[in-house]
Amino acid sequence: MQGDLLKPQHRCALRFNSGMTRLPSPEILISEVGPRDGLQSVKTTMPTADKLRWIDALAAAGLREIEVASFVPAQLLPQMADAAQVVQHALRHSGVRVMALVPNLRGAQAALQAGAQKLTLPVSASHAHSMANVRKTPEAMVEEVRAVLRLRDEIAPGVPVEVGMSTAFGCTLQGPVPEGDVLLLAAQLAQAGVDEIGLSDTTGMGNPAQVARLFKALFSEVGALTGAAHMHNTRGLGLANCLAAYEAGVRTFDSSLGGLGGCPYAPGASGNVVTEDLVFMFEAMGVSTGVDMNRLMAAREPLQAGLPGEPLYGMTPEAGLPKGWPGR
Amino acid sequence: MQGDLLKPQHRCALRFNSGMTRLPSPEILISEVGPRDGLQSVKTTMPTADKLRWIDALAAAGLREIEVASFVPAQLLPQMADAAQVVQHALRHSGVRVMALVPNLRGAQAALQAGAQKLTLPVSASHAHSMANVRKTPEAMVEEVRAVLRLRDEIAPGVPVEVGMSTAFGCTLQGPVPEGDVLLLAAQLAQAGVDEIGLSDTTGMGNPAQVARLFKALFSEVGALTGAAHMHNTRGLGLANCLAAYEAGVRTFDSSLGGLGGCPYAPGASGNVVTEDLVFMFEAMGVSTGVDMNRLMAAREPLQAGLPGEPLYGMTPEAGLPKGWPGR
Repeated sequence: MQGDLLKPQHRCALRFNSGMTRLPSPEILISEVGPRDGLQSVKTTMPTADKLRWIDALAAAGLREIEVASFVPAQLLPQMADAAQVVQHALRHSGVRVMALVPNLRGAQAALQAGAQKLTLPVSASHAHSMANVRKTPEAMVEEVRAVLRLRDEIAPGVPVEVGMSTAFGCTLQGPVPEGDVLLLAAQLAQAGVDEIGLSDTTGMGNPAQVARLFKALFSEVGALTGAAHMHNTRGLGLANCLAAYEAGVRTFDSSLGGLGGCPYAPGASGNVVTEDLVFMFEAMGVSTGVDMNRLMAAREPLQAGLPGEPLYGMTPEAGLPKGWPGR
Repeated sequence: MQGDLLKPQHRCALRFNSGMTRLPSPEILISEVGPRDGLQSVKTTMPTADKLRWIDALAAAGLREIEVASFVPAQLLPQMADAAQVVQHALRHSGVRVMALVPNLRGAQAALQAGAQKLTLPVSASHAHSMANVRKTPEAMVEEVRAVLRLRDEIAPGVPVEVGMSTAFGCTLQGPVPEGDVLLLAAQLAQAGVDEIGLSDTTGMGNPAQVARLFKALFSEVGALTGAAHMHNTRGLGLANCLAAYEAGVRTFDSSLGGLGGCPYAPGASGNVVTEDLVFMFEAMGVSTGVDMNRLMAAREPLQAGLPGEPLYGMTPEAGLPKGWPGR
C-alpha cells in the first residue's frame, strides 16, 4: 500500500478490492513508443529476437498499447526492416493493441496486411518540418491521410487511424507554430475522418501553460477525437507537460522505456518522456495506469541486452521505488 | 520574443515595457540554495574566493534570495567554515536577500552577528529523521525555534525566520508521514511566531497530487505564512511537483544551480530541482521570475571552476534555449 500517496477515492477502491479479484480499470493509457520511436532513433539495429523479447516484457508489465514498428522502406530505416514480423509476434498478446507508424499509403497497406491493430501517421503543423520530414506540405499529408482512411475502410474497417501532429508546440526550423495553424489542421483531419488526433512536442519546446491551453482548444475543436500527448524531455519539462495535459483532460500519454530515442539535440539530453518516471508519477498520484512498476523496470533488461552500451535514462530506475511501494 | 510561449497578459506587459525601462515585477521568487544545500552535500570544499565569485554571478542573473551558508560547527561541515565571510560578502548585493541555515540557537546567533537577512531552520515532520538529522525530536526543535525567535526579537527584529519542514512528503526511515502530523507541526510553528513555513520533499517521495493537497491544507492552516516548496528530483518529478505547488498558490521555490546537492541516493540522480530548468519552465509559461536565463546559465562557469570534476545537472543547459528565446 502507498498509504497517504493515494487519493482518498482510490484508497477506497483498493480497500474494496482487497476482498475481490477485480482491480479498478486503469484511468489513463500509457502508449509505449520505444520499439518504434526509440529504436528508429538509435544507429544500432536491435536483432529481431531481442525486439520480440523486449515487447513480451512490455506486455507482461501491463502496457496496453505498444507502437511496435514503422512501415518504411528498409533502405531508409534498416532498424525497421523486420516490421511485419514484429507486428505478427506482438499480436499474440491479447491485452495489447499493436500499433504501427506509417508515413504514407504504401506503408499503411503493408502494416494492415501484417495485422496492425492501429495506425499512426505523422502530420507536421510546421510547413518547414513537414517538408524536411516527409517531403510533403501539411495539406498534401492531409490528402495522404484521406487515402489511408479509404484503404482502411476497404480492407480493415475496424482499425483506428490516429494522427500524431508533429511540432505542435514549436519547431526548430520554423520557430513558433501559431496555435491557429494547429487547430485548423486538426479540424481538417477531423473532417477527413481520423479516429484520434494527438499533439507532439517533437522538438521539446512546449511548456505546461501552452500544453494545457492547446489541448483545451483541441478538445473544443475536435472533442472526443483528442488523442495522445507526446511530450519530450529535452529541457526537463516532459513530466510537467504530461501533468498539464492530464489536468486539461488528456488520458493517453506516449512515452518510451528508458527514454530511448527522440533526441536530435544534446548528448545526455533524453528526448522522449521516460515511461518508468511517467508511470511512477501517475501511480504515485493514485491515477491508475494498469502498469506494474516492478515489471516495467524489469523490461529494461531485454532492452539493454538488445542494445548493449546504449544509454538508458530514467530517474526512478536509478533511485528505486520509495519505501512502502507495493512489491518493492 | 518568445511568441506564443507567453501568456497574453504577459505579452502585453512586455510590449508595453519595450518603450519603458521598468520591467513587470516578478510573480514568483526563486530561492537559490546551491551555495548552502549544494555545497554542504559535496565532499570537496569550494575555496572561499570561488564561492564569492559564484554568488556574484547568481546575483547578476537576477536571483533575489540566496541561501549562502550554514552556521554549523566547522568540524561537522568544513565546507561551511567560511560562513560569516560569505554572508558579509553577499551583503554587498543590494537586490539579494542573504539567507543562512541555522540548526539551533548558537548558529542563529552567529548568523545574525554576521549580518544574515533571513534565517531558515530545518524541522523534520518525521520523528525518525529528526533524531537522525539534529538529534532532537520535532517537539524539541519547536522549542529551539522559539529560542531563536526570542533572540531575533532581541538583536535583529527585522530579520524573518523561516522553517523548512523536512520529510513533509515521506521519509526513508519512517515511511509515509501522516499529513495530520505536518499540519499539527505547522500550527505549532505558526503559534511560536515563525514568519514562513515551507515544505520540503527531502527524500524525493512526493507526487503532484500530494504536493497540491498538502500545500492547500497548509494555506488553510497557516494562511500567508505558507512558504517555499523545496522539491527534489530524485525520481524525476521535481518540476511537476513545483508546477503542482504553483497551481496550489505557492510563490516561492527552492532550487539549486546545476542541481547540486541533496541526493543521498543513486549516482546520477540529482537531488535538488535544477534552477536552470525551473526558471526555464516558469519563464516559458509567462510566469516571471526576475531571473535572466542567459546569465543564469553563465553562472555555471564559476560553480564548475570552484568544484572541478563535480557533475552538474540540467536539461536546459544541455539542450540550449529554444529558437526565438530572448537573447539566445
